Amino acid sequence: MPANKAWTLASRPQAAVSEDNFKLVESPLPAPRESEVLVKNLWLSLDPYMRGRMSDAKSYVKGVEIGEVMVGQTVGEVLESRIPAFKAGDKVLTQLGWQLFGTTKDPIKIENTKLPLSYYLGCLGMPGMTAYFGLKEIGQPKAGETVVVSAASGAVGSVVGQLAKLWGCRAVGIAGGKAKCDFVAKELGFDACIDYKAGNLMRDLQAACPKGADVYFENVGGEILDAVLRVMNPYSRIIVCGMVSQYSASEAYGVKQLRQVLVNRIRMQGMIVFDWRDRYGEALKALAGYLAQGKLKYRESVLEGIENAPQGLIALLKGGNFGKQLVKLA
Amino acid sequence: MPANKAWTLASRPQAAVSEDNFKLVESPLPAPRESEVLVKNLWLSLDPYMRGRMSDAKSYVKGVEIGEVMVGQTVGEVLESRIPAFKAGDKVLTQLGWQLFGTTKDPIKIENTKLPLSYYLGCLGMPGMTAYFGLKEIGQPKAGETVVVSAASGAVGSVVGQLAKLWGCRAVGIAGGKAKCDFVAKELGFDACIDYKAGNLMRDLQAACPKGADVYFENVGGEILDAVLRVMNPYSRIIVCGMVSQYSASEAYGVKQLRQVLVNRIRMQGMIVFDWRDRYGEALKALAGYLAQGKLKYRESVLEGIENAPQGLIALLKGGNFGKQLVKLA
Repeated sequence: MPANKAWTLASRPQAAVSEDNFKLVESPLPAPRESEVLVKNLWLSLDPYMRGRMSDAKSYVKGVEIGEVMVGQTVGEVLESRIPAFKAGDKVLTQLGWQLFGTTKDPIKIENTKLPLSYYLGCLGMPGMTAYFGLKEIGQPKAGETVVVSAASGAVGSVVGQLAKLWGCRAVGIAGGKAKCDFVAKELGFDACIDYKAGNLMRDLQAACPKGADVYFENVGGEILDAVLRVMNPYSRIIVCGMVSQYSASEAYGVKQLRQVLVNRIRMQGMIVFDWRDRYGEALKALAGYLAQGKLKYRESVLEGIENAPQGLIALLKGGNFGKQLVKLA
Repeated sequence: MPANKAWTLASRPQAAVSEDNFKLVESPLPAPRESEVLVKNLWLSLDPYMRGRMSDAKSYVKGVEIGEVMVGQTVGEVLESRIPAFKAGDKVLTQLGWQLFGTTKDPIKIENTKLPLSYYLGCLGMPGMTAYFGLKEIGQPKAGETVVVSAASGAVGSVVGQLAKLWGCRAVGIAGGKAKCDFVAKELGFDACIDYKAGNLMRDLQAACPKGADVYFENVGGEILDAVLRVMNPYSRIIVCGMVSQYSASEAYGVKQLRQVLVNRIRMQGMIVFDWRDRYGEALKALAGYLAQGKLKYRESVLEGIENAPQGLIALLKGGNFGKQLVKLA
């Protein structure tokens, strides 16, 4: 039987994350206790929120302690079960983190295994739920309105824009580089996608939003937020889902256009998807339906092997991924 | 019959407003046309929003043109009426601006003249309505919660904090200088008032909000917003009513703590009181009731004579007023 391998937090990053912040630790395979299952992880999800957990700053959940296994959502297969409702071979969604094997008391069974298992970490997982509830409940888009979303080729952003289109809106993405923008506009079917690296963000935003923006789904913060604030319409809504540009910044960017919130009566609201956990079933049904009908496209960026997880997160935090970032563990 | 005197906009301020931006113009008394009344203004209200109207930047209403009379709400007495429902001697609320006399098609009759007429420019006027609807509808305070308000000795802030107390909340004010803070805490009955000029804003805020803040009624923006963001609780609400610190700034302050909006799922919303105009009667009844019962205290700062209006606005924009700023015109 192989030994377990796990990435632990070795030190807290001061600004950008580096490989030094992680330590790969080997250990014997754990044995499941009463009411636990032993799981072999197949897929690990890498997500921007992980940067926050590496810090000890106050946040909505506790950070990872030095020496603890890095947190993360995983999809795996049950090897051994001491929970009556589970058996070996079951596919499960867990929070086992950056490791090959683990035991848990609360696996979630994946009933429908027709869709790729990795989708439960992306468009059918937390990113998909985030896109669905953030846009629907905070954004409250009406047909004919313009929805802008940053990090538009990412796991959340790509779903936001496609839902906006499905719900009758104009969808405008913001992404970094021509390849991502082409994918967003041509493959995903957004009405436009702005390359923030091209140097004409404000002008391009104005051109892409001839009637202004009614909803902005914010994943990045910083300068992009300042620019989008200038095209927001009266009574528009901003979903603050992430501020990835700020997570590794040693000094926070100062947002100068908040006066627009006053002038245009903007409603700006922070969201964490856990707040809708009682309604995940509703989103799962809708998103799986759109996928089955071919109305929701989805792109993954896969790294092979647990050894590459730190590099994957580092690249993700710099915008280096293209689609939902995963690590294939087995 | 005396001639009219009116302050017109002579030039647009680049940063801080100066007396050069205004010009006092004399003209013959206007005659009311069909469906108009001629009004002698008794009181002129000075308000921070006037700074915005002096600019030609896009805002929620059109700015004042060069050569036009400065906008402003006034209380006056009808001298001559060509509207059947009005007669000479009626007291009216109008938008006649910075002048001694004027004609208008849409005066609002003040039915209850037992309370001081000037109150209809303050606690019973736009500032009172702003406090009432902003706090009630956007702030949605629950008994036991902590409500923080900036510019706490001002026309809006003083009503916000007293309503918060009447509605069962802890009220914490922020104001500039010991005299204002003493007034807010001792006369108006707030639980605490922080002097932002004392140099310990963050520490004083933390001490005054031992359970954090659930509602922040924002009148000033800038550094004070950054500080208050750091004490906001999960699911807290920010009413963005004004950003007076920013109106005359040549460069906007960059707000660095917006990440708190995400981490604490804060809802931040801009407001303009006009959006509740259909419900002004509700607020008027509530506020007049509290005043009659001695539960709502109110302070005015009165300048005598139209000649002093520019100086009054300049001082107001620097926080130099103490209570609702008025100009007594007759």
